[in-house]
Amino acid sequence: MEKLLYTGKAKQMWQTEDPDVLRVVYLDQATMLNGKRKDHFDGKGEAANDISTLVFEYLIDNGIPTHFIKRLSEKEELVKKCHMFPLEFVTRNVCAGHFASRFGLEDGMELAEPVEETFYKSDALDDPFANESDAVAIKACTHEEYQQCWELTRRCNKLLTPLFKKAGMKLVDFKLEFGKLSDGSLVLADEFSPDNCRLWDIKTNAHMDKDVFRKNLADLTTTYDEVYARLQEAVKED
Amino acid sequence: MEKLLYTGKAKQMWQTEDPDVLRVVYLDQATMLNGKRKDHFDGKGEAANDISTLVFEYLIDNGIPTHFIKRLSEKEELVKKCHMFPLEFVTRNVCAGHFASRFGLEDGMELAEPVEETFYKSDALDDPFANESDAVAIKACTHEEYQQCWELTRRCNKLLTPLFKKAGMKLVDFKLEFGKLSDGSLVLADEFSPDNCRLWDIKTNAHMDKDVFRKNLADLTTTYDEVYARLQEAVKED
Repeated sequence: MEKLLYTGKAKQMWQTEDPDVLRVVYLDQATMLNGKRKDHFDGKGEAANDISTLVFEYLIDNGIPTHFIKRLSEKEELVKKCHMFPLEFVTRNVCAGHFASRFGLEDGMELAEPVEETFYKSDALDDPFANESDAVAIKACTHEEYQQCWELTRRCNKLLTPLFKKAGMKLVDFKLEFGKLSDGSLVLADEFSPDNCRLWDIKTNAHMDKDVFRKNLADLTTTYDEVYARLQEAVKED
Repeated sequence: MEKLLYTGKAKQMWQTEDPDVLRVVYLDQATMLNGKRKDHFDGKGEAANDISTLVFEYLIDNGIPTHFIKRLSEKEELVKKCHMFPLEFVTRNVCAGHFASRFGLEDGMELAEPVEETFYKSDALDDPFANESDAVAIKACTHEEYQQCWELTRRCNKLLTPLFKKAGMKLVDFKLEFGKLSDGSLVLADEFSPDNCRLWDIKTNAHMDKDVFRKNLADLTTTYDEVYARLQEAVKED
């Protein structure tokens, strides 16, 4: 029997018959304020799965090691089981969100070079920042693993910023997570969807990500479908 | 006429006739919660000046460039005028304070290697964390300056941890600040006193720093006088 391993903010992880393979189910919901608010959106799970599948396949084609195996159905995918690092690797190309409010800056300022921030995943502790020495001290990873994760994150930014640009969107910021497979190799894991990045329309700066929900600006599923349609076109041209 | 340039939480900075020299006056007060609570302590300014003078002279004797010129009187010293980086460089040798609460850990855990955290000095923003990429993005310093400050901080830790140990105290954590002189050279500035470090008695783990005030454990001036007396003995032996 398949067993539910974990229900996150927007997806579930299920065991499969293969101990090294998990089934991901994308849920039709979005949360904000670390889960304190949660809403239902028809079709959102499918759109997030579509976008994440496209992005992971694009990254794999460009040499990034990931946990991704394949899309299974509208809301499901298969991934390799990982031992996850309890860390979020956040890259910021444009000033927005937590970075802007933390330093009292306006949204939208272009950054001369990407800002790289790591956070410790803990709802109870409200995801505190954790630099390399913190992450090692709390045994979240080793120095080498921390640096490998950032190396991969930088490669992803260099691949994805031009892809989103071609699709008419600014990749403002994004959050990645990493894990280790049973053979010890380090891979990109989790998902890549507008749930964990900020995308602004390149001409209008309109939000095309979860800020649409956070700020109640438009229908979330319609927005995610638009992101997916644009990415499909951009990948075709590639 | 001398002009008051700045009143901080525990000292004032005054202009002198020499545009490159400032006079520091240590105040008989301590604050907590970013200045929200402030108390008066007779003799505390003198004790802080004594300790900081001793530590700065010890660091200078061991090759650390600093802003310190000389102790002028019980509560005063002369320092070289600096353009200060708006950053705090915090080194943690033992888990305590903000680090412990941030990660839900117990005070007192020895750290296998020092934890190094940088914060942006801003009372209005509540001193947010600022790693290298943050500090550069908000133009608080350049990459090179950030790394030079950390190089000097590491050298100070390697000098001061054994000094305090010889004086029967554990240097649990400490905060340094840096600035640039008019000739462009980077120097350690601000002060080094139990206001901006944690010191625990090596045998009893009793607090011998500003936590005495924060936690209302003992008389602050008596504690600071004891720290100074112990440091004087340790330096004599050196």
